[in-house]
Amino acid sequence: MRILVLNPNTSQGITDRLMGAALPAAAAGTELVALTAPRGFPYIATRAEAQIGGAVALEMLAEHHAGFDAAIIAAFGDPGLFGARELFDIPVVGMAEAAMLTACMLGRRFAIVTFAQALGPWYQECVESHGLAGRLAGIRMLEGRFASVADVQDEKEELLVDLANKAVQEDEADVVILAGAPLAGLADKVKARIPVPVVDQMAAAVKQAEALASLRVRKATAGTFRRPAAKPVIGLPEALARRFNP
Amino acid sequence: MRILVLNPNTSQGITDRLMGAALPAAAAGTELVALTAPRGFPYIATRAEAQIGGAVALEMLAEHHAGFDAAIIAAFGDPGLFGARELFDIPVVGMAEAAMLTACMLGRRFAIVTFAQALGPWYQECVESHGLAGRLAGIRMLEGRFASVADVQDEKEELLVDLANKAVQEDEADVVILAGAPLAGLADKVKARIPVPVVDQMAAAVKQAEALASLRVRKATAGTFRRPAAKPVIGLPEALARRFNP
Amino acid sequence: MRILVLNPNTSQGITDRLMGAALPAAAAGTELVALTAPRGFPYIATRAEAQIGGAVALEMLAEHHAGFDAAIIAAFGDPGLFGARELFDIPVVGMAEAAMLTACMLGRRFAIVTFAQALGPWYQECVESHGLAGRLAGIRMLEGRFASVADVQDEKEELLVDLANKAVQEDEADVVILAGAPLAGLADKVKARIPVPVVDQMAAAVKQAEALASLRVRKATAGTFRRPAAKPVIGLPEALARRFNP
Amino acid sequence: MRILVLNPNTSQGITDRLMGAALPAAAAGTELVALTAPRGFPYIATRAEAQIGGAVALEMLAEHHAGFDAAIIAAFGDPGLFGARELFDIPVVGMAEAAMLTACMLGRRFAIVTFAQALGPWYQECVESHGLAGRLAGIRMLEGRFASVADVQDEKEELLVDLANKAVQEDEADVVILAGAPLAGLADKVKARIPVPVVDQMAAAVKQAEALASLRVRKATAGTFRRPAAKPVIGLPEALARRFNP
Amino acid sequence: MRILVLNPNTSQGITDRLMGAALPAAAAGTELVALTAPRGFPYIATRAEAQIGGAVALEMLAEHHAGFDAAIIAAFGDPGLFGARELFDIPVVGMAEAAMLTACMLGRRFAIVTFAQALGPWYQECVESHGLAGRLAGIRMLEGRFASVADVQDEKEELLVDLANKAVQEDEADVVILAGAPLAGLADKVKARIPVPVVDQMAAAVKQAEALASLRVRKATAGTFRRPAAKPVIGLPEALARRFNP
Amino acid sequence: MRILVLNPNTSQGITDRLMGAALPAAAAGTELVALTAPRGFPYIATRAEAQIGGAVALEMLAEHHAGFDAAIIAAFGDPGLFGARELFDIPVVGMAEAAMLTACMLGRRFAIVTFAQALGPWYQECVESHGLAGRLAGIRMLEGRFASVADVQDEKEELLVDLANKAVQEDEADVVILAGAPLAGLADKVKARIPVPVVDQMAAAVKQAEALASLRVRKATAGTFRRPAAKPVIGLPEALARRFNP
Repeated sequence: MRILVLNPNTSQGITDRLMGAALPAAAAGTELVALTAPRGFPYIATRAEAQIGGAVALEMLAEHHAGFDAAIIAAFGDPGLFGARELFDIPVVGMAEAAMLTACMLGRRFAIVTFAQALGPWYQECVESHGLAGRLAGIRMLEGRFASVADVQDEKEELLVDLANKAVQEDEADVVILAGAPLAGLADKVKARIPVPVVDQMAAAVKQAEALASLRVRKATAGTFRRPAAKPVIGLPEALARRFNP
Repeated sequence: MRILVLNPNTSQGITDRLMGAALPAAAAGTELVALTAPRGFPYIATRAEAQIGGAVALEMLAEHHAGFDAAIIAAFGDPGLFGARELFDIPVVGMAEAAMLTACMLGRRFAIVTFAQALGPWYQECVESHGLAGRLAGIRMLEGRFASVADVQDEKEELLVDLANKAVQEDEADVVILAGAPLAGLADKVKARIPVPVVDQMAAAVKQAEALASLRVRKATAGTFRRPAAKPVIGLPEALARRFNP
Repeated sequence: MRILVLNPNTSQGITDRLMGAALPAAAAGTELVALTAPRGFPYIATRAEAQIGGAVALEMLAEHHAGFDAAIIAAFGDPGLFGARELFDIPVVGMAEAAMLTACMLGRRFAIVTFAQALGPWYQECVESHGLAGRLAGIRMLEGRFASVADVQDEKEELLVDLANKAVQEDEADVVILAGAPLAGLADKVKARIPVPVVDQMAAAVKQAEALASLRVRKATAGTFRRPAAKPVIGLPEALARRFNP
Repeated sequence: MRILVLNPNTSQGITDRLMGAALPAAAAGTELVALTAPRGFPYIATRAEAQIGGAVALEMLAEHHAGFDAAIIAAFGDPGLFGARELFDIPVVGMAEAAMLTACMLGRRFAIVTFAQALGPWYQECVESHGLAGRLAGIRMLEGRFASVADVQDEKEELLVDLANKAVQEDEADVVILAGAPLAGLADKVKARIPVPVVDQMAAAVKQAEALASLRVRKATAGTFRRPAAKPVIGLPEALARRFNP
Repeated sequence: MRILVLNPNTSQGITDRLMGAALPAAAAGTELVALTAPRGFPYIATRAEAQIGGAVALEMLAEHHAGFDAAIIAAFGDPGLFGARELFDIPVVGMAEAAMLTACMLGRRFAIVTFAQALGPWYQECVESHGLAGRLAGIRMLEGRFASVADVQDEKEELLVDLANKAVQEDEADVVILAGAPLAGLADKVKARIPVPVVDQMAAAVKQAEALASLRVRKATAGTFRRPAAKPVIGLPEALARRFNP
Repeated sequence: MRILVLNPNTSQGITDRLMGAALPAAAAGTELVALTAPRGFPYIATRAEAQIGGAVALEMLAEHHAGFDAAIIAAFGDPGLFGARELFDIPVVGMAEAAMLTACMLGRRFAIVTFAQALGPWYQECVESHGLAGRLAGIRMLEGRFASVADVQDEKEELLVDLANKAVQEDEADVVILAGAPLAGLADKVKARIPVPVVDQMAAAVKQAEALASLRVRKATAGTFRRPAAKPVIGLPEALARRFNP
């Protein structure tokens, strides 16, 4: 089974973090291939960046999806996810979606813990877009600056654990998600210090991509996720244009 | 007052329809300037197209917003609207949003009536993204093909009126929105044949853009719609890149 | 265009505040006519007072609506609004409704900031009656007494600005509404001290009344806002009785 | 125990129907006293009428509540109910509220079945104002005219039973409420022909008023239902004015 | 009228508390019979205990319901309530349900105040299962241990009153429910110290059981609470088995 | 990895169907062990049966969970699931939950298609208990009797496919779940005849159990799913009693 791990951010350091968490989670026989965004933002954090970054994710998928059994859009707000499900025939999993659905099986309400204030509103809209607001205990965000986004999980480890514990004690969270691609892999390091299940977003995404691929469901030809009708397009990258106008 | 009417579709014919409805609605002293998307889709109708078309809308605004007092994103699903509100200092109105909020002042529940089955799911998600699902009586869509998207309002006028009347009688709609840019201007022609208020999406958008511009509210420097923090970007059109990295 | 500004409170001082905010907001060619309630309460603040004050608003409209293109019920809880929409052929705008819908176009969630604890529950029910609870960041109310309701905006200006800033910082409000008729006109004075858009309720109501009047929508003859069927009434003021029994 | 049965409609015939259903439901030792509205509408059926009729209900309560242990506002949309709870020290029960809460103990979802199309929207808003929309299976309304509102339950008995059975079969209602004051007492006559529990609105209201009165709870002096602060009023009937300005 | 008061806990001391609150609330002519669970938990406090305790409640009802006009499941989370409504022909009232519905008639939002942290999640799910989350101001729980569950209301009386007052002041509760079977009867002792109505869960349940029994509604033979279809069962207590396989 | 497949029904034939769907879905290295309920109902279909069947599931888990890495409660309404998550240290997956969460990754709204009218209400409450009502397109149930519950999927195959296609065409379902343990394994046989992804509940449950087990999350010692505090119990099967009173 071949799974494409698509980082819609332009930071190679984040891709490395993602793969560091993904590889140990993969089953025997699963091959993971990483891809870093060729254009866009070092780290998507706002609605405007997600609008553009999601379009970049579609371009990347259009160019590279061939030969894969599933793909993961590996940014916590799931940029471009729903469009990708229309356009492509393989299952596409969002990293936020996978983490949240996994958390739903481990408790009643999950907390999202992340490393920057700026991310809260986008994550909140992501939770709502998946219809999971009723399962959310709250979003907790670190205040203050950090030296490097790719290493923020090392720099802020203690503070993030404190925040997770506050989410458990004050927000009645049953499960904690350490959210944002730069935190991939942190769950395993800190889980002994947090008294509820801690979900690693990237590991969850790998398991869900494996699950969907192995279920061999068909691509919809009806319903709201069928392929868009063919139409002329102007000014799109060639591979992407072909998805709309084969 | 100068208002930019931004058509995120590539069809000049649709822009003409939009302006045909916009101009009579404008107040004395309002100047409307139309802009047609230079790249993208002839008519946005799916999540994938909205993802890309919304990014195109941001590019267009970045290049052309200077000197305007407000802008209208003139496609019914409001592609790129929330990102635009982060990036730009002038008020930006979505055509769907303007039509729905106007409808809220004319009754309890509004119906959305449109000309193609494919548009329903996107419109539904648009309604939900604005938090207005509780005010929606239902979405009614014509079945069948049409000769030309720019002239569909002429070709299907009778059927659209029938559909609107069904929405009133069967769905208990208090107000009807004739939705989708190609239907701009139709409301006025048919309103005598529908027994509840009929909102023209483009006229509503012009009035709301005028209202917001005249209220002279400030651009947020806090809250979730403040400008994104400056950051290096790769591979974006120059004007858009400058909005992120001034 | 002639717009009736109906103050359902009996305080002439509040009417003066309302007009002080309304006149600068009006477009060239808009004539505003003010009306103060001849009976009722100096300031509506509870459900019981709104029940009675709303009935008074209907009496006032029945007697005075002729010759107007639109009317504004200028109390923040919108007393009598939905009944007025059934009874009269011109558009009727609620001041709370206009402020909230305008706020929806300027951010995700709005805060309501007001000058007295007693107003909170009524405003909360008003928000819910419009189906906008999902867009509300919270209601913040000043504690403590004030010297005169008509001048409370001068006496408490600093405290109200502080409260608005707390709503932004602690409740994540994207927009602030300074609510309650006695605060009409305050937004303009303080907007430089609050880092998000501040909506003036009366200015918003004027713009929405102008917008609705210029859209020239028809009065519903079907749906839930059609005119009530004629019936004999007992003991109502003559003009109001005629609306029910022409 | 003395309970005031307040008919906010002006029809004595409806009061008679209400008492016909109320008296057999009363416990030994419960005295019921009926009151018919001295002004207003023969039968409240719209938002405008409820606005005015609710104010009339407050006038009636102000003049007559002394010496009673509880009061019932005996119109299905509960006009004036929430204001009455602020103003008066005795428990006040709404007939719709009592019927719906009783239905909640007899099944999951209840249907509201009534005799006129015009009543649907008002009842829908009543259900929502009580926060019970999630328990509503639907509202079914008879079409067509009737000879006399006071006798509509005799004239339409068969059709109402048919409608109730449709609500059970097609809307999956677990319980049926025959709604609208003119239908008081009908439940008992038809319950053998409907395969789920049928709640009589008036009987339910009597039992709930007895229950509340016997629980001897105190009048709130805090919270949102405390008595409104004293204030000068203008032009209200004397007894009502005294409730606001003792 | 004979009402069965079923305590699904195994503590006789709690049954005594329940009957201490129930007897003064009963009308003349109402006979109350208490039953303590023969197997299960001294005090149900978790989902797992409610799963088992609810099954025990069904066993108890199957064995003892004959000759009663109504039954009360007298634990605050209403274990087994919905199943009981399917299986038995007499009305069955949940103690939490009765308290909450009664509270709905005394204000807008009610607070649940209880004596142990462990109970919060179960009570929250109980509120949601009744569709009443929109009416809940919040759940307040005492911290710390107590000497004896049967006497916790004496030991913690002051702290519980403080908590109730906090719910009124900080959570804007209009009504307080002192929740959990061990607190039965406390409301009457403390109501003068809490400025809003305080509902006694057991007294409320007695009044609602009396109300339902006196309304003489029929057992559903359609809808989702009709009796389950007959089927072979294995390994159930004999009386319970007969309810499924008569 | 060892996974316990727990059938809370007493029908061995259903267990065989479940294992027939489970085994092909299991990864290399996954060992599945089936268990059929020793007491209870041949097929759980009502709230009362789920109350008891869920308690039986807890008994079964208490006796047999040792040595397993995860367990599946293999009935569509997930009887006993939330209690099991409190009591046991291994992940426990509900078959309905697994199917619904998997469906969420394959579209916007899923339809539940099942073989008997009686199952609808229980499934509806199951969807709501998971907070997924917003993702449900509808529940479609076959009418009419069947010869044998274990073979109903063969007998009704055509009708179930028709029903699934209706759910796609009329309810706008993006995904179909063939629900109810007796339908396990049917998805694969019919998926070519349904134009959207069809989720096999049992296969989905196996993949989710594998995913959770491989993520190696810890058992909560805080939050609402921590183990219940130790307490004396009466009359429970010995293994179950020990889970509560070690």
